Amino acid sequence: MTWKGRSIVSILDFKRSELEELFQEARIMEEQLSKGKVEKILSDRIVAMAFFEPSTRTRLSFETAAKRLGASVIGFTGEEAISVAKGENLADTIRMLSSYADLIVLRHRYEGAALYASKVSSVPVINGGDGRQHHPTQAMLDLYTVARELGRIDGLVYGVLGDLRYGRAAASFILGLTRFSPRKVYLISPPNLGLRREVRMLVEEQGLPVEEASLEEVVSELDVLYVTRVQKERFPDPEEYERVKGAYRIIPSILEGAKESMIIMHPLPRVDEIDHRVDSTRHARYFKQAAYGIPVRMAILKLVLTG
Amino acid sequence: MTWKGRSIVSILDFKRSELEELFQEARIMEEQLSKGKVEKILSDRIVAMAFFEPSTRTRLSFETAAKRLGASVIGFTGEEAISVAKGENLADTIRMLSSYADLIVLRHRYEGAALYASKVSSVPVINGGDGRQHHPTQAMLDLYTVARELGRIDGLVYGVLGDLRYGRAAASFILGLTRFSPRKVYLISPPNLGLRREVRMLVEEQGLPVEEASLEEVVSELDVLYVTRVQKERFPDPEEYERVKGAYRIIPSILEGAKESMIIMHPLPRVDEIDHRVDSTRHARYFKQAAYGIPVRMAILKLVLTG
Amino acid sequence: MTWKGRSIVSILDFKRSELEELFQEARIMEEQLSKGKVEKILSDRIVAMAFFEPSTRTRLSFETAAKRLGASVIGFTGEEAISVAKGENLADTIRMLSSYADLIVLRHRYEGAALYASKVSSVPVINGGDGRQHHPTQAMLDLYTVARELGRIDGLVYGVLGDLRYGRAAASFILGLTRFSPRKVYLISPPNLGLRREVRMLVEEQGLPVEEASLEEVVSELDVLYVTRVQKERFPDPEEYERVKGAYRIIPSILEGAKESMIIMHPLPRVDEIDHRVDSTRHARYFKQAAYGIPVRMAILKLVLTG
Repeated sequence: MTWKGRSIVSILDFKRSELEELFQEARIMEEQLSKGKVEKILSDRIVAMAFFEPSTRTRLSFETAAKRLGASVIGFTGEEAISVAKGENLADTIRMLSSYADLIVLRHRYEGAALYASKVSSVPVINGGDGRQHHPTQAMLDLYTVARELGRIDGLVYGVLGDLRYGRAAASFILGLTRFSPRKVYLISPPNLGLRREVRMLVEEQGLPVEEASLEEVVSELDVLYVTRVQKERFPDPEEYERVKGAYRIIPSILEGAKESMIIMHPLPRVDEIDHRVDSTRHARYFKQAAYGIPVRMAILKLVLTG
Repeated sequence: MTWKGRSIVSILDFKRSELEELFQEARIMEEQLSKGKVEKILSDRIVAMAFFEPSTRTRLSFETAAKRLGASVIGFTGEEAISVAKGENLADTIRMLSSYADLIVLRHRYEGAALYASKVSSVPVINGGDGRQHHPTQAMLDLYTVARELGRIDGLVYGVLGDLRYGRAAASFILGLTRFSPRKVYLISPPNLGLRREVRMLVEEQGLPVEEASLEEVVSELDVLYVTRVQKERFPDPEEYERVKGAYRIIPSILEGAKESMIIMHPLPRVDEIDHRVDSTRHARYFKQAAYGIPVRMAILKLVLTG
Repeated sequence: MTWKGRSIVSILDFKRSELEELFQEARIMEEQLSKGKVEKILSDRIVAMAFFEPSTRTRLSFETAAKRLGASVIGFTGEEAISVAKGENLADTIRMLSSYADLIVLRHRYEGAALYASKVSSVPVINGGDGRQHHPTQAMLDLYTVARELGRIDGLVYGVLGDLRYGRAAASFILGLTRFSPRKVYLISPPNLGLRREVRMLVEEQGLPVEEASLEEVVSELDVLYVTRVQKERFPDPEEYERVKGAYRIIPSILEGAKESMIIMHPLPRVDEIDHRVDSTRHARYFKQAAYGIPVRMAILKLVLTG
């Protein structure tokens, strides 16, 4: 498959070579951005944002990417999305949008919404997050961040920490790693928030060297620590949450044994899972990661819309 | 009257020749759209969307049309509109907007809001739907759909089905037909949701050959079946609703006697008034109709803003 | 300090000469607007609107200014802003936005939010209103309105009427006047809604000739009457409100003794503090004032982004 005209549903639909093509394009976009002069190659295109579930950061990141390339943006989010969803079924909404816009970015609570939308749409659909596993463009920008900050994705030791069960960014990142050859991927989560069985099976099938661990045990080995939040509401017993939460909160002391070059990533927003004192350490890369989202999404839009 | 600088309040303000001029312009827009290369003739213009009543489809359709022509869009909708409406009267809001933008698209619950706004505004106001009868740009795109799909508007047999009392799209379509010479316009509605007396008198005065009918009786005669929803909430007695609703729901079996060339239109969103199995029949035109909204609204914006 | 790259937190950060430079630039923008042909000098820029507190007018005014200059706009407001604020702290939101956009306009309930944001942002932050005193761009456009309508700011007699305690537009206007040499500034407010002590001390230190007065006493002396609303909710005792409100409502009869050339300004929205019959008098300038907001904010964006 080529990029042009393609819907983006899951990171698993992409081969390593396709991701590498994307990263090359993103690098070019980065350079144009740093010069403050981006070619307006999408000035005849309209991108529709159909955000049935709110996500300000993903929405703003895509809108910024589209507008940097000269595209116009239409769409809905928040309260308006609820009334759209009540008024008609998803297929009708997508059919309407695909007669207005040249590409649709869809965010939806339900697993499979993006795949379904891509079937009824006459224009490409990009999954801006659906269900619990898929957020392919987040995985793309996360992988790009590793490549740009550490020079490679292969051969590194990763720790993915937090809620691996309900957090779609973490799951997508792990799925994305199957396209490369990490040395090890440590899964660091409370027992009730571990990787779903089907995702675990899938990544093992792909040969990804995953292993459960505690942060303390493995912190000194890590090249990348990918942090996501552990939400109190996921615990049936609040006491259980209080008992475990300390192990999933990144504070400076826990980083003492880490490699100097280890980077900490986070899909944002963070609440208190990374202490603010960590922001000024050499490890912090989460704001840079958010910034990389722009050239990566610009590259995605370019490849899908113009090839 | 010429189009340039004109407010669009009611479809009745337009002569046949003016509508034909619009349709010619819309045809040119269609061609530009199909080539993916639209002249950005409105790149120095700002269009304000003042949506005091939510309408995602009308809003997105106008925004798409404006952006395709290079215009910028500002505005408010939803919750924000409520706070605008609380904070000041309509005249002040319109005065403010008309000092910011070059054209205002207004959506409002109250009959007459668009006319009033057009009086206080220093820029043209387009009625994006107000009260129960007026949605002139919907009527324009509906008439254009008939012309494009069947080659003409005159001499055809129309059935307008559903809530003709509260549905502004249906009422506007019927009013728009008075500018042409249909052979017959069948009004197909529950007794309590028939055309308002004043609208009925008005269209008869204009010589429109209207007649009440049931779908079953006339389906074989129809060239155009325009469907709108019958809402349960309009019935004081739920049992009455249950009793009649079947007669206003389009299912494949009811279409068996229809002409092959008959087209089914709907202003969208549809809920269950058209069965999804109808979508794949040769009759379905409602998504194409929504798509025609873009070139028609582009043509409207062009004519009003540049002549 | 030069304008380029500068954050705009308080009107007090600006010298008279800097404001005069702004007004010159705004005059050029006015001319371009009146010709309907504005140079798109910001077509490579993105402006982020971070409206944690709703303000449709300020938001639309900035968006219009940005778009007139060819900039793209991203952002959030309303309900979405609430969820942003819940999800992460202000610093993280600003860091994210400053990696997307070239400039941030911030509206926030809390005093000091804009100053704090300007410290953590890597791009300029413009205070679109925070706390109870600061709304510097409103003060700029208000001063510009006086200059344009009366030919000068110095040597005039001002009356600032209404809620001077909680109204940030009124406070900012008075602070802005300290950069010029008014002959007199009358403070016309209910006793419990007078200028805050710290603001009063500050403006006196700057040598501004302020004095409490009633409108009746001074109306004949005024060159400028700046009106803001007195809200019922500010009064612990509703009877007290009923007793005083008449003195803070502008009706035609109260203007009988005014100079012919006196102008009435208001930051809008107005509710009933200015009777609608005043709109058609020679004194009314509040809609013109809103219109001046566009060239002034265009000039601000130009100076901050391009120098």
